[in-house]
Amino acid sequence: MNSFRFHNPTQLIFGRNAVDQLGSNIAGYGKSVLLVYGGGSIKQTGLYDKVMAQLRSAGMAVHELAGIEPNPRLSTVHKGIELCRRHGVEFILAVGGGSVIDAAKAIAVGVPYEGDVWDFCMRRARIEKALPLGTVLTLSATGSEMNGNAVITNWEEKQKRSFGSIHAYPQFSILAPELTFTVPANQTAYGSVDMMSHVFEQYFSKTTGTPLQERLCESILQTVVENAPIAVREPENYDARANLMLCGTYALNGGMISVGMENDWASHAIEHEISAIYDIAHGAGLAIVFPNWMKYVYKERIDRFVQYAERVWAIERAGRTDDEMALAGIEATRAFFTSIGAPARLADVGIGSESLDRMAEEAVRFGPIGSFKKLGKDDVRAILEMCL
Amino acid sequence: MNSFRFHNPTQLIFGRNAVDQLGSNIAGYGKSVLLVYGGGSIKQTGLYDKVMAQLRSAGMAVHELAGIEPNPRLSTVHKGIELCRRHGVEFILAVGGGSVIDAAKAIAVGVPYEGDVWDFCMRRARIEKALPLGTVLTLSATGSEMNGNAVITNWEEKQKRSFGSIHAYPQFSILAPELTFTVPANQTAYGSVDMMSHVFEQYFSKTTGTPLQERLCESILQTVVENAPIAVREPENYDARANLMLCGTYALNGGMISVGMENDWASHAIEHEISAIYDIAHGAGLAIVFPNWMKYVYKERIDRFVQYAERVWAIERAGRTDDEMALAGIEATRAFFTSIGAPARLADVGIGSESLDRMAEEAVRFGPIGSFKKLGKDDVRAILEMCL
Repeated sequence: MNSFRFHNPTQLIFGRNAVDQLGSNIAGYGKSVLLVYGGGSIKQTGLYDKVMAQLRSAGMAVHELAGIEPNPRLSTVHKGIELCRRHGVEFILAVGGGSVIDAAKAIAVGVPYEGDVWDFCMRRARIEKALPLGTVLTLSATGSEMNGNAVITNWEEKQKRSFGSIHAYPQFSILAPELTFTVPANQTAYGSVDMMSHVFEQYFSKTTGTPLQERLCESILQTVVENAPIAVREPENYDARANLMLCGTYALNGGMISVGMENDWASHAIEHEISAIYDIAHGAGLAIVFPNWMKYVYKERIDRFVQYAERVWAIERAGRTDDEMALAGIEATRAFFTSIGAPARLADVGIGSESLDRMAEEAVRFGPIGSFKKLGKDDVRAILEMCL
Repeated sequence: MNSFRFHNPTQLIFGRNAVDQLGSNIAGYGKSVLLVYGGGSIKQTGLYDKVMAQLRSAGMAVHELAGIEPNPRLSTVHKGIELCRRHGVEFILAVGGGSVIDAAKAIAVGVPYEGDVWDFCMRRARIEKALPLGTVLTLSATGSEMNGNAVITNWEEKQKRSFGSIHAYPQFSILAPELTFTVPANQTAYGSVDMMSHVFEQYFSKTTGTPLQERLCESILQTVVENAPIAVREPENYDARANLMLCGTYALNGGMISVGMENDWASHAIEHEISAIYDIAHGAGLAIVFPNWMKYVYKERIDRFVQYAERVWAIERAGRTDDEMALAGIEATRAFFTSIGAPARLADVGIGSESLDRMAEEAVRFGPIGSFKKLGKDDVRAILEMCL
């Protein structure tokens, strides 16, 4: 186990009708809030009205930034920062999924910063403070509701980059599983792939002496594997939605499940290049990339892949070699993704080979990616070719 | 899964030589610290000198409260409160195990309170604020380094009572596994029993629909079962000590592993009555009580006990009935405790039947205890008799 720091100050408020607790939790953060949301589905479901009633009950003046994109854009973040400055906003409330929350975080860290918030994504500046923010989660996937990370897309430059800071952790997140009943089957599947992928980035690690962390990772993977098909099949199954929501949050909440382990994150970097150009759902991209990354790297540490096959997929030895075990686990992963409706190849989402070079180059813009196996441009290109 | 709130603001600083980071972490909390510690073993190991050097480097004036008892006493807490008030102490640093940390918490919440801090243990007052505190952990067991709970003994009244508050969470805890190299085998065993018991209190629950939480609990149990015998046998095995330390912290850090589950805590209440009178090690008492509690209650929800036997102890069905499975898991627990040197019966620690009535009565002083099976005085007495 490596040395580590862990600090996650976000308060979770979880359960049916947890939205009713918004007003009492937001009171005390000032009198002016920026409400950030996406394409307006929260108006159809009635959530918007509930949130507004809670904000009114807390005596907050509400300013709105609607229309956050699925891959939230820097230009939209700029609009939010401008709104906050103009109206003296004191608190940011994100109502939505990971994209909405990420945009809210970028606004929160951007408001008190004199330069361009994109500096944080390009590692040209360090985040020193932020407006406080809270979230009402409507999609189980990214874990953004309980971490300090955000991913922003600079659409003009076709770049998707992330930042992370202790200052960007939400003060509180309201997790009401019934808010995800209306999430369509494909988004439910992509969200499930996303949370499993977050665990993969941590679990496939070269760090040794981490038996508890490995089991915590496997616990989430097994629980997603059990519950995602139920949620896809029965969208209003509260238990399945609640279990997925908790899995998504725990999968990426400041590294709780992988403290002291070196993380990888190469697959995310590769997927970000795909969705920076093609604007596909992040989880769909990950479903395509991850099994191919696994096949490309598994020999680096075959024991971890054997353990994965045995513990997560209950694949029995039955005379199999280590290679056969590892590959059976990878194949089970692919088959599972397919079974819940996630794509398997770039062709499935209409992407050809035209941008492979560019994506490979951009992925390693800051140097080789990954730690389980360090990947250079040629490696990334090879993995992308496997994805075709 | 039930509705829940989860909020754990404690920062963990974990790893070899993490004590070297004390100074930089304590700076900013004022100029005057109360250093709280136990019987002086930190002077023998050199830890005291290291801590003092760090505090000096941070420019802190240091006041000391030494001699915290293994079951920390209200009278000692009173002394600490008096010291803080007299010297205008701004921060409390606990260097030790759970007892020292618990005493520090009681001092922290007691200083700004006008009444007697015992009021909080007797539910006669609510904790509204506290001095900030930090910890340097020297014993893996209670999880007190990352939660807001404390257990205090009123020796005059032979009562051992607890309180909990968000205000009593440490600001930071320094977890350097090598500081536990000098913990003797019996204390290592009791600490391991303690952390497993914390998991049991959460895991044996009537709440359904909690597959992730159950696996998180099992993850800790399995990891303790693997690592405790190693630490007992090889006290300077860093990995085993590090794994146990993380298990102890995660086992009871504000309920992270059991969010949305009803907890039990009857066995702790029973053990508290034993150690309130006899001053035995808490973990030793738990080793005696828990398997007997299990035998007394397992029929309440036999499926959980079967799962426990299968997943934690890898006991195979092989034609066993549910009852046989459950009892085999309980027997494996007892055998494991014995194998690492923990006592099995009250007689092993020199306790007879003379105080059973009194202990049973005190245990239910505030009403029936437990939730897995609600226990009245007769139930507690029956369990204590099984412990003889």
